[in-house]
Amino acid sequence: MYFDDLPVGFTFETGSSTVSLEDIYEFAGKWDPQPFHIDPEAAKSSPYGRIIASGFHTITVAFVLILDSDIWTEASMGSPGMDNIGWIKPVYPGDTLRVTGEVLSAEPSASRPDRGRTRIRYKIYNQSDDQVAEFTGIHLLRRKQV
Amino acid sequence: MYFDDLPVGFTFETGSSTVSLEDIYEFAGKWDPQPFHIDPEAAKSSPYGRIIASGFHTITVAFVLILDSDIWTEASMGSPGMDNIGWIKPVYPGDTLRVTGEVLSAEPSASRPDRGRTRIRYKIYNQSDDQVAEFTGIHLLRRKQV
Repeated sequence: MYFDDLPVGFTFETGSSTVSLEDIYEFAGKWDPQPFHIDPEAAKSSPYGRIIASGFHTITVAFVLILDSDIWTEASMGSPGMDNIGWIKPVYPGDTLRVTGEVLSAEPSASRPDRGRTRIRYKIYNQSDDQVAEFTGIHLLRRKQV
Repeated sequence: MYFDDLPVGFTFETGSSTVSLEDIYEFAGKWDPQPFHIDPEAAKSSPYGRIIASGFHTITVAFVLILDSDIWTEASMGSPGMDNIGWIKPVYPGDTLRVTGEVLSAEPSASRPDRGRTRIRYKIYNQSDDQVAEFTGIHLLRRKQV
């Protein structure tokens, strides 16, 4: 789909993905080696009481689900940024995540007729339908050529 | 350092890290497999003209530099979120990144005397001192026990 196919209020949902303990160790070992992500003993005395996924891991798992949903993937010209990332509840080993998206704004570029800027609010849920995280993506999307 | 050691206006700078083409392929292949991150031929006809790093990759490279700088690492109790992520200029293969941080706010918790909430504005620069990205981290940090 193109920019023009995603009006304000358009909603969608992705597939799901399970985050294993090994996934958590692998991601956090490289990108976020804080004790509550990689050290089970230290995690016990952390505010979380056990191993939790890195918030960056949660966001990237969500982003892959979003890309795989093929809503805007083919039209993507990149992104100038993201807003309002919230890590609301911990993601634990074995949790299964899915994402919902809702288009908040869709503005055609004033200077470049081939593209528009679409802001999408993403919410990430676990297998118990608890919302664990959220973020707003800003996407540069190709317009239909008329 | 603890929450109490990082007042509003405190600034610091991290070490640096070089992002290779192989690093870009490895990260994006797993977490952001858009053509302009993983396919040199497709990247030529993208808005960027060549392979660029995933924005998530830029942010996680920066986050490792920040953790390694040991400013708040030992006091970290996790994070409720981030704000205002901006991808300002592309990061190309071979670019060397460094990060500056400035404390924007530091609020002791009203309900939990062991911690405070510190917002830090991070700016990411390349080897030419061009700012390529920025984000605001929100950190829950332990207080000194008195």
